[in-house]
Amino acid sequence: MNVAIVGATGAVGGEFLRVLEQRRFPVDELRAFGSRRSAGRELTFAGRTVRVAVLHDGCFRGVDLAFFSAGRAVSREYAPAAVRAGAIAIDNSSAFRMEEGVPLGVPEINPDAIRAHRGIIAVPNCTAIILCMAVWPLHRASRVQRIVASTYQAVSGAGARALRELHEQTRAVAAGAEPIAEALPYPIVHNLFCHNSPVGPDGYNEEESKVMAETRKIMSEPALAITATCVRVPVPRAHSAAINLTFEKTMSEPDARAALAAAPGVRIVDDRAANHFPMPRDASGGDEVLVGRIRADDSQPPGRGLNLFACGDQLRKGAALNGVQIAELLLRCVQ
Amino acid sequence: MNVAIVGATGAVGGEFLRVLEQRRFPVDELRAFGSRRSAGRELTFAGRTVRVAVLHDGCFRGVDLAFFSAGRAVSREYAPAAVRAGAIAIDNSSAFRMEEGVPLGVPEINPDAIRAHRGIIAVPNCTAIILCMAVWPLHRASRVQRIVASTYQAVSGAGARALRELHEQTRAVAAGAEPIAEALPYPIVHNLFCHNSPVGPDGYNEEESKVMAETRKIMSEPALAITATCVRVPVPRAHSAAINLTFEKTMSEPDARAALAAAPGVRIVDDRAANHFPMPRDASGGDEVLVGRIRADDSQPPGRGLNLFACGDQLRKGAALNGVQIAELLLRCVQ
Repeated sequence: MNVAIVGATGAVGGEFLRVLEQRRFPVDELRAFGSRRSAGRELTFAGRTVRVAVLHDGCFRGVDLAFFSAGRAVSREYAPAAVRAGAIAIDNSSAFRMEEGVPLGVPEINPDAIRAHRGIIAVPNCTAIILCMAVWPLHRASRVQRIVASTYQAVSGAGARALRELHEQTRAVAAGAEPIAEALPYPIVHNLFCHNSPVGPDGYNEEESKVMAETRKIMSEPALAITATCVRVPVPRAHSAAINLTFEKTMSEPDARAALAAAPGVRIVDDRAANHFPMPRDASGGDEVLVGRIRADDSQPPGRGLNLFACGDQLRKGAALNGVQIAELLLRCVQ
Repeated sequence: MNVAIVGATGAVGGEFLRVLEQRRFPVDELRAFGSRRSAGRELTFAGRTVRVAVLHDGCFRGVDLAFFSAGRAVSREYAPAAVRAGAIAIDNSSAFRMEEGVPLGVPEINPDAIRAHRGIIAVPNCTAIILCMAVWPLHRASRVQRIVASTYQAVSGAGARALRELHEQTRAVAAGAEPIAEALPYPIVHNLFCHNSPVGPDGYNEEESKVMAETRKIMSEPALAITATCVRVPVPRAHSAAINLTFEKTMSEPDARAALAAAPGVRIVDDRAANHFPMPRDASGGDEVLVGRIRADDSQPPGRGLNLFACGDQLRKGAALNGVQIAELLLRCVQ
């Protein structure tokens, strides 16, 4: 396969390269595209050196698969161009996610929708993926009626600059200096705040609106009741979420455990005696979504409510890994 | 008033001294008590030097008010002794909180219960106080039926050692070293995890059980539906909570704002255009509970659901300030 990575020098772009290499994805030619600023930089992929180029007319000629993670505007313009050139575009931006006819793909959840693509397949919002990975196995076993999610989101979700900023601020406070905020609106080290996306007239930040809308689309439940509070926390990598569920009928704790234990891509971490549950340190760099703190919620009618805590690497399963898994699924269809 | 502080060298004990001094509480004699390890240490209070002593028989003779924050076992043994010696015991531990006849006092919420004390008045769990301060004004305006709370709790809630540990770990990772966890079960810098209290057979950690039981008692609503997920985050000071509410009838967003704006001890921080909402950096060291992210929850029937985010200094309103406010309330009754 001839593969293009658009946004190759960003946080997710770099992860795409790592995941493709680690999973030995059958890459013949690799083309890396970036902004004017990063053009000419050299990246290493599977022992080869790849020079970053800027996007240009005809740059997708001969490309089979193009992974996009350079923001909404770039995807809007160039993903259709890639498709016209004969490639499949796997787009990590929000540009096409809610577009009718574009699958919002999570291979463990909606493989049929992915297979029915018309050229562009959208990778969902990272938090929506992690949330759905934890909720879907339960929903399949006993219909979920309502979700209340509160998130604890890592700074690398805001890009490579925000991640550098957390590390710079960490060094600043360690030295007794004031942390300086540039990439994020407030100092994030030793602090936390409402997700740094614009807040709409309904009071929800854009991240929350995405999580709510995309969860409905991923799970093919347009009427699902869901509300979200998205919070940025001083964690480099891996998003967490406290999840409160209401089931239409009932879901016992043992049944929930069984459903999650059987779910691909999910690992139960739920050791009450050791107080060991999902945390970003354990989820970072890993492929699985960790799910724990599985317990009945007695504030709801007996058997109808459940609490969970989930944690997943938002650059891997929340972005690049999920994108590559979509490509692997399509490859299996072709072969 | 002759005042005793038991646990004077701890995180909350030190805050008791600061709050008494800042609020010019009428202190005649001040006695400071601590563990054997800290006996002999000298503390400063309003220009005087106070030497820390160990608790001993007769140590409360002549004391009018004794503030306890040295843990459950010390309160169990010595708070009744203080009361027998003629003092009022204001206890920050969990020893008497759920005992029938002992008020669980938050002056803005249940002043009558506080006035009806029989010697011991319990200061609620810090998270329960902050949660109740945000929810009570709304509950008074239109009965709350159910609360789903997810917390973001500062390390100083786990004591002075845990706070030192966060700072040591911050310096460690800034220097590229591994953070070492001793006071808390896992590294907390750049990480987060289930609250570090024992997890019961129902899967809830002790903090969550306290928050649920104490919220019901503070608000005099023994049947209130409430569920909580308590999480420790790498923040030095000030607890936060994402709060999802269900109202028995309805509560509009403007009515919620009006109720919160009129509530003593609460400050609304809710600037959507600037994405400025409650955060620990703003709440730390302050007396008010910051409440924001006030928005209708459309996952519930129209007008029945509301989301909030609250943030308060858990050493001040969540502990020492609330204790001193209880004393001030009683002082006003006497005068």
